[in-house]
Amino acid sequence: MGNQRREFYWGLIFVLGLAVQCNAGVTSTYRRRLEASADMPLDADVFQLFVDDNTDIPQQDAPVLGTFLGDLGQTFDSNSTLTHYNANPNAAALLYVGDFSYADNYPYHDNVRWDTWGRFTESSAAFQPWIWTFGNHELDFAPEIGESTPFKPVSYRYPTPYSASGSTEQYYYSVRRASAHIIVLASYSSYGKYTPQYSWLQSELKKVNRTVTPWLIVLMHAPWYSSYKSHYMEGETMRVQFEAWMVQYKVDVVFAGHVHAYERSHRVSNIAYNITNANCSPVSDNNAPVYITVGDGGNAEGLSTEMTQPQPSYSAFREASFGHGIFDIKNKTHALFEWHRNQDGDDVVADSLWLTNRYFNPTKDS
Amino acid sequence: MGNQRREFYWGLIFVLGLAVQCNAGVTSTYRRRLEASADMPLDADVFQLFVDDNTDIPQQDAPVLGTFLGDLGQTFDSNSTLTHYNANPNAAALLYVGDFSYADNYPYHDNVRWDTWGRFTESSAAFQPWIWTFGNHELDFAPEIGESTPFKPVSYRYPTPYSASGSTEQYYYSVRRASAHIIVLASYSSYGKYTPQYSWLQSELKKVNRTVTPWLIVLMHAPWYSSYKSHYMEGETMRVQFEAWMVQYKVDVVFAGHVHAYERSHRVSNIAYNITNANCSPVSDNNAPVYITVGDGGNAEGLSTEMTQPQPSYSAFREASFGHGIFDIKNKTHALFEWHRNQDGDDVVADSLWLTNRYFNPTKDS
Repeated sequence: MGNQRREFYWGLIFVLGLAVQCNAGVTSTYRRRLEASADMPLDADVFQLFVDDNTDIPQQDAPVLGTFLGDLGQTFDSNSTLTHYNANPNAAALLYVGDFSYADNYPYHDNVRWDTWGRFTESSAAFQPWIWTFGNHELDFAPEIGESTPFKPVSYRYPTPYSASGSTEQYYYSVRRASAHIIVLASYSSYGKYTPQYSWLQSELKKVNRTVTPWLIVLMHAPWYSSYKSHYMEGETMRVQFEAWMVQYKVDVVFAGHVHAYERSHRVSNIAYNITNANCSPVSDNNAPVYITVGDGGNAEGLSTEMTQPQPSYSAFREASFGHGIFDIKNKTHALFEWHRNQDGDDVVADSLWLTNRYFNPTKDS
Repeated sequence: MGNQRREFYWGLIFVLGLAVQCNAGVTSTYRRRLEASADMPLDADVFQLFVDDNTDIPQQDAPVLGTFLGDLGQTFDSNSTLTHYNANPNAAALLYVGDFSYADNYPYHDNVRWDTWGRFTESSAAFQPWIWTFGNHELDFAPEIGESTPFKPVSYRYPTPYSASGSTEQYYYSVRRASAHIIVLASYSSYGKYTPQYSWLQSELKKVNRTVTPWLIVLMHAPWYSSYKSHYMEGETMRVQFEAWMVQYKVDVVFAGHVHAYERSHRVSNIAYNITNANCSPVSDNNAPVYITVGDGGNAEGLSTEMTQPQPSYSAFREASFGHGIFDIKNKTHALFEWHRNQDGDDVVADSLWLTNRYFNPTKDS
């Protein structure tokens, strides 16, 4: 591959809601819009089939790229987010951390809203890869109306290249992109020891070659480290199962969605617990990933505004706003993470962090 | 139902390995056979098709019943266990806590060993219900030989009445038997919040009517409270997800398998943890179940003999032996649990506990 020698660039988009300038590394003061956003009407122009002659632009060979986005939905705020992302000329791929159309919030899980979401996202997805992580709103599990097979709409609409990485299920897989090995986990598949996802992840982590792909990134929907009241501790059961591997294999950063807000953790781990030793507090761990929650895409459920207080020590920065972020991998040792809010100009940074690679240059960076 | 007024009787069978008399409530001294047991040869008479004229004996109307058995396999020790169980005239149903044939330990998961196990267990299963819990040895997940669909052999061979309880998957369901509501959980299906199993269990627990079925019993394969080194903490991820409900709904007893030994817990819970409070030790809790591990059926993998030391405070009794036990529900307030080892006579009790019903008579009983 040789990509580790090439400088490249990754974009990270999040979606938040307000216009207060914040200092990176501390909890911001924040204003928030209290009301939820409304889904755009079915005749909105963004739901028309997107047609463009530039379909021959390079896609898979883009040297760089990367945007993390979650819980987008199809509201006017969602549109702001996507428009903001599309205005970024450097972002060339999008890693999506789950919760797509929110069609399941409509009567009978109205699949017309799956159609509109597909067309809405075409302004980006037609020209660059979107890497899919699956959220609870993709379950579309509704036995009360006769649908007892989970994930049915999304399974047909959003295939993934899972078999190429030895996975046996559409919802967890890996891709290598530029100098990053990206592992997508499934919060809503089984992950107990011996299950297919467990066995696959155990095998997959051993295959990662940091010389070929210096950066190791994990995506999931339900975050392990989130200090918002909404969905608090919902990622705990998967954390208990897999966190030790994240530390063992020196994962650089874990992105999740689910919580409709933005949060960035310090490098912490909580893997010493053995039931009888009471060692169950997150502690600073230089081998641990930074955990970033970016579930702030703008969906109709609105922002998650309530935070646990006081801010726990593992939380470095949190703000309940729509916005977007950039993850810019400079080389095999350094990457710059920036978070931008929708309402700020493209060049305004609301939070940022220089990350050093856990394998090649594991300095204390958070 | 009205069964709550009727005295009835439940048998519990476990399988252990040695002949030392123990005092209930303390860790026993124990001897163990170090070598694993061998599977019986294919021409063993217990693998012949079982034929008996007594097929019209009452089955579903048996007033009593109940045996818990796990990790049976098809060794000479398995045969001792089943023979011992069959000699108990009072046990009229068997609740099986997972790991059936161990066919997956044979090359290509030789399904002939599924056939032999079916015939081996017919001496009981032809005449009384066996309630199935599914273990890791039922996964038969072997992508290396082209089998990437988990649970395929067992799904065809061992159907369950899951739809009758509103479940949408064969591996978790409930049955009501005599005066007990029995909930079977799936350690190897998904159980994150919003998944089908999570949603089903949440709904199912609300449906339990303790007036109709005073006793609430939960079965699973991987135990939440086991102090053996083998499979240590493998049940932790499911415990984190579901333990609070066990306490909230006053489950009387939880049976699990997986660990090839016997263990009984005190009534404890570990549900106060909120990440930042460090409250993560099991504590005495009168609303909590007793946890009993009975994965000692006699399979070819041998006994789990290594225990964590010192014995943790949540563990009331542990012994690595093949054996069997009886769970005898006397009425809606009292049940007698007894554990018998294979090598003891039928009337010899190696461990016992009077359980009082958590809903009707929650005295401190353990």
